[in-house]
Amino acid sequence: MSGRLTIVGIGPGDDALVTPEVQAALDQATDIVGYLPYVARVKPRPGLALHSSDNRVEINRSRHALEMTSQGRQVVIVSSGDPGVFAMAAAVLEAVDYGDPAWRDLDIRILPGITAMLAAAAACGAPLGHDFCAINLSDNMKPWSVIDKRLRLAAEADFAMAFYNPRSKSRPDGFGKALKTLQEICDKDRPMIFARNISLSDQTIQIVPINEVQEDMADMRTVVLLGSSQTRIIHRDGTPLIYTPRSVEK
Amino acid sequence: MSGRLTIVGIGPGDDALVTPEVQAALDQATDIVGYLPYVARVKPRPGLALHSSDNRVEINRSRHALEMTSQGRQVVIVSSGDPGVFAMAAAVLEAVDYGDPAWRDLDIRILPGITAMLAAAAACGAPLGHDFCAINLSDNMKPWSVIDKRLRLAAEADFAMAFYNPRSKSRPDGFGKALKTLQEICDKDRPMIFARNISLSDQTIQIVPINEVQEDMADMRTVVLLGSSQTRIIHRDGTPLIYTPRSVEK
Repeated sequence: MSGRLTIVGIGPGDDALVTPEVQAALDQATDIVGYLPYVARVKPRPGLALHSSDNRVEINRSRHALEMTSQGRQVVIVSSGDPGVFAMAAAVLEAVDYGDPAWRDLDIRILPGITAMLAAAAACGAPLGHDFCAINLSDNMKPWSVIDKRLRLAAEADFAMAFYNPRSKSRPDGFGKALKTLQEICDKDRPMIFARNISLSDQTIQIVPINEVQEDMADMRTVVLLGSSQTRIIHRDGTPLIYTPRSVEK
Repeated sequence: MSGRLTIVGIGPGDDALVTPEVQAALDQATDIVGYLPYVARVKPRPGLALHSSDNRVEINRSRHALEMTSQGRQVVIVSSGDPGVFAMAAAVLEAVDYGDPAWRDLDIRILPGITAMLAAAAACGAPLGHDFCAINLSDNMKPWSVIDKRLRLAAEADFAMAFYNPRSKSRPDGFGKALKTLQEICDKDRPMIFARNISLSDQTIQIVPINEVQEDMADMRTVVLLGSSQTRIIHRDGTPLIYTPRSVEK
């Protein structure tokens, strides 16, 4: 049997957000490869090998998956959210690009998933309801100056924004720096949304005017959204609804 | 029984991309509301009323759904892709914001779906694998000057880009105008991707250097992606793979 590599998005956490297409790929796999907490979401069964690895070893993990695929295995790489959004698909293609030329002709498929920003947006309304951007706030793989420039241009374009990887133990200061830039250039009551453990039973959503935001409101389990200048809040009993209108006045 | 309004994303077309959470909402509905081709994707059954409407009547459709919810119905509004990305969630919240104050206390849920740009990206690799933006190219509800400004700032930020609603019968010129701006400011071999009928049996993917793009490559059934300056193409037998690397050189 010829090998196949399928890179799948398992959504933000709740199995009810895993597409049937992804579930079918998991059911047909011989090998599951990925970061430990994502592999742990796959139900073990006879004949299925689980290969967990640590964070930050994406290229090694990709090569391992490509080698097993070359050997005829049915390999599935699991990514949180969508594999194409700050996740494993780009890492695997980078490994193919610079790796064994024979890997180019492998059967490689990428199956989309529900990415964190869209699950977070749905949980509080439609804050990304008009033009928006997604920025990875980690400076592990790009200079901070690139992040700062993108934040300023995105604000000038009046995009709503989604921020992935806002803050971690190894990067405690990054979100604070981004926040300082955004507090300088955005109107002070611009709503910022902190969505933590999205789709899980302990999900929390906080909506905070940007001038009242503290940097420790974000951690590695948080996706952060920021409204555009047009974003509106509908107050009501309980959690408000927040949305960015579809129109900009002519 | 008290009413509930659920706004769901049914993905780009293939039922294998509908999440179990959305399927459950469809199965429990008394009323399905939406644009005709999306309502047509819901299987009829006894006790289920289907309310189709034309395009461009989003606010009327939202009010109708909110009224039925007030009367105790289990109403589901179907959106293509994700309801929070250029779709029905913002329209419904706008109707709530400016409508009957009692609507604010209705039980309103939004369930995410696979949005077109992420399905299109997955079909050709990981072109949105690093920072990116999503822009609606329709100027029905915003001035063209806003679109033009956003395109220029997004290029300066070196975002990969996704364009929704690039061109329609009533707006034959919009995509050509956007293309002209982008051809002026992007390097001439920047890859542009035309993903048509994404996830369906007649899906097509074209990857074209931006200086060779013709405006009629896009229509209403196309989502258009554009790489950043860093985006790479992996040539091989068959369709190439395209990805935007996770890193920017320090």
